Amino acid sequence: MPNISKKGVAMPPSPIRKLQPYADKAIKAGKHIYYLNIGQPDIKTPQKALDAVRNTDIEILSYSPSQGFESYLHKLVQYYKHNTIDIDSSEVIVTTGGSEALSFAMGSITDFGDEIIIPEPFYANYNGFSTAYGVTVKPVTSKLEDNFALPPISDFEKQITPKTKAILLCNPGNPTGYLYTKDEIEAIADLALKHDIFVIADEVYREFTYDGAEHYSIMNVERLREHAIMVDSVSKRFSMCGARIGCMVSKNQEVIKTAMKFAQARLSPPTLAQIASEAALDVDKSYFKDVNAEYTVRRNILVKGLKKIKGVKVAEPKGAFYCVAQLPVNNTEDFAQWLLEEFEDRGETIMVAPASGFYSTPQTGLNQIRMAYVLEEKSLIRSINILEKALQLYNA
Amino acid sequence: MPNISKKGVAMPPSPIRKLQPYADKAIKAGKHIYYLNIGQPDIKTPQKALDAVRNTDIEILSYSPSQGFESYLHKLVQYYKHNTIDIDSSEVIVTTGGSEALSFAMGSITDFGDEIIIPEPFYANYNGFSTAYGVTVKPVTSKLEDNFALPPISDFEKQITPKTKAILLCNPGNPTGYLYTKDEIEAIADLALKHDIFVIADEVYREFTYDGAEHYSIMNVERLREHAIMVDSVSKRFSMCGARIGCMVSKNQEVIKTAMKFAQARLSPPTLAQIASEAALDVDKSYFKDVNAEYTVRRNILVKGLKKIKGVKVAEPKGAFYCVAQLPVNNTEDFAQWLLEEFEDRGETIMVAPASGFYSTPQTGLNQIRMAYVLEEKSLIRSINILEKALQLYNA
Ligand SMILES: Cc1ncc(COP(=O)(O)O)c(C=O)c1O
Ligand SMILES: Cc1ncc(COP(=O)(O)O)c(C=O)c1O
Repeated sequence: MPNISKKGVAMPPSPIRKLQPYADKAIKAGKHIYYLNIGQPDIKTPQKALDAVRNTDIEILSYSPSQGFESYLHKLVQYYKHNTIDIDSSEVIVTTGGSEALSFAMGSITDFGDEIIIPEPFYANYNGFSTAYGVTVKPVTSKLEDNFALPPISDFEKQITPKTKAILLCNPGNPTGYLYTKDEIEAIADLALKHDIFVIADEVYREFTYDGAEHYSIMNVERLREHAIMVDSVSKRFSMCGARIGCMVSKNQEVIKTAMKFAQARLSPPTLAQIASEAALDVDKSYFKDVNAEYTVRRNILVKGLKKIKGVKVAEPKGAFYCVAQLPVNNTEDFAQWLLEEFEDRGETIMVAPASGFYSTPQTGLNQIRMAYVLEEKSLIRSINILEKALQLYNA
Repeated sequence: MPNISKKGVAMPPSPIRKLQPYADKAIKAGKHIYYLNIGQPDIKTPQKALDAVRNTDIEILSYSPSQGFESYLHKLVQYYKHNTIDIDSSEVIVTTGGSEALSFAMGSITDFGDEIIIPEPFYANYNGFSTAYGVTVKPVTSKLEDNFALPPISDFEKQITPKTKAILLCNPGNPTGYLYTKDEIEAIADLALKHDIFVIADEVYREFTYDGAEHYSIMNVERLREHAIMVDSVSKRFSMCGARIGCMVSKNQEVIKTAMKFAQARLSPPTLAQIASEAALDVDKSYFKDVNAEYTVRRNILVKGLKKIKGVKVAEPKGAFYCVAQLPVNNTEDFAQWLLEEFEDRGETIMVAPASGFYSTPQTGLNQIRMAYVLEEKSLIRSINILEKALQLYNA
């Protein structure tokens, strides 16, 4: 039997899906599960987006241009303008989700054996894309006690080698919920310029900021125009994760030219989903206001609720819709599995994501979990209640 | 300014798109162009597929499972059964086009520095996926005089090294139109087993076979179950290239397990397009009959027409909807550009794909072009007429 690839062996399975078999069993056994483990919002997709697809008069579902439909590119430029980001449509490539934008960005700037620095905990699939290209992730650990603020620049400096090609930031952060300040972004920009490396900024949660905090985009840093690559997506913004539309943005024309080769090799991003995504940009401003108000309520419930549980510590999230909590257990992987396999309260339990999968440094974050507040109020309250009871029993 | 990646530099631009700027200029100048250069069929997408999307009552456009919707997987299994291919749904991963299936297949079995053997001329984007993973393509040249039949097995043997991980076949072939016989597939199977390497078979044109010829799938070779990976797509089958749905099939569970890691990293294939693709499988058998009848007529017109032009040689295509022709010119890249820039007949011209981009061996196929018979009868006749006049003038 021929061998599969070394990188295939090395590629980590998704930390979120490891527990799925236990969840499946629990469901079969009749348990109700509250899913706090995944980033699939329950918010409705804008009607305009769905209607655009329903009303299409397409007769041949053809390839779109590899860069994306021109009409969509132009509307994206407008959208960014409204978000203080000034770009030209030639600086954008429409991608199959933010996922593909990440893949194109990495592919365009890294070779086998190169390194990328990422503050941890980070979105676990960064590992997948890095491993696929033979790129090593060098983590810089951020701390729950600091709400996962940017670690000291000196910690980044320590990780820089001749192989370093980029720093990858997620802003606001998944799983941390941390929103980088303007000062932090500027400090990273200085570092990138000093060492002449790229900054990839994953800004797919741009709109999800709370307490009046404003998002400061990597594209706002004028002096970084040749060094900045932004990754974006409609998945969370418009609750249309299944569309699979994102984009990659850069003012560096060499980067765009190179990413376009990757884009042409895979022919085009999905046509129907681009139609939906273009229409989604027509939503009223009130859409984001309403959605934000909803997430603010949920965040407050979750964070307050968690803080009341004995032994639990929470990082205060300022953006996205995740929070990382530290539990009074040794290993949250065991605990999360136990929640599905052994525990129930009136036939119900919760599913959470053990945070260790979001760390690249081994044996880190073992007592932390990530929770996504993508459920409505009542379910969140009940979930916190379940967690509290479960911890009592687990530690008894 | 930081450097882009070496692989990004090495990645060849699409040979089809190189000429696009000249086409754009010609259009601006008011010329009408017959596009014989691209594989975008003009056949209508089945109404059932489009209706399924129009009638969806989705309220949240959510991620699908990474492997694809269960209902679609089950229908795919039925589809394959009708095509003499016996598989289980656990042996399929739904992908974002055949393109992604190719990428997953290569990623799962190759590492940086590995080699893949491909008979040339071949689908040019195989280069893109190989380059992205740092994999070297070792070509084995097939000949127009033989209609691009499988080259002698000894030619393959010569290319095998300890780094060889797979042979990649396109059956029926783009750009060749060649349909491999059962004997040829069996010979490749023997070779793969002898050297314990994989066979990736790109069968996206499975239904497009002519003159009563039957397609023999790699999945029909029982003894190759641990070595065969099939790549498939709805793009051409149902004239829904813009859906971006394909799949990867293998009975080797290690391969599937590994490819699933790539699949999970990118989250999911497009949701709306899977709904359309599932519905497309409900088309009557007559759909394929009608489409095949149409392509047969077109093929006959094109091949007969080309043969009548002085100095032109054509390989007889038995499948897909392309044919490769040899022209009485030194360099078809210059000629194709000239067709767009300089030539016109009553305000009209044609766009063809120079075949050199489909060869990996340098300086090969320089006097060949690929033509796709994706236009209706009248346009094809006119296109042949234009080609004939153009050649006369060009060689005058
Ligand atoms: C931080 C971050 N980046 C990128 C993605 C990729 O999402 P998509 O490919 O759906 O755009 C996600 C999805 O959860 C994410 O959380
Ligand atoms: C031989 C072959 N394989 C794969 C593909 C990829 O097509 P898609 O990604 O649309 O399925 C094509 C498209 O032209 C092709 O010709």
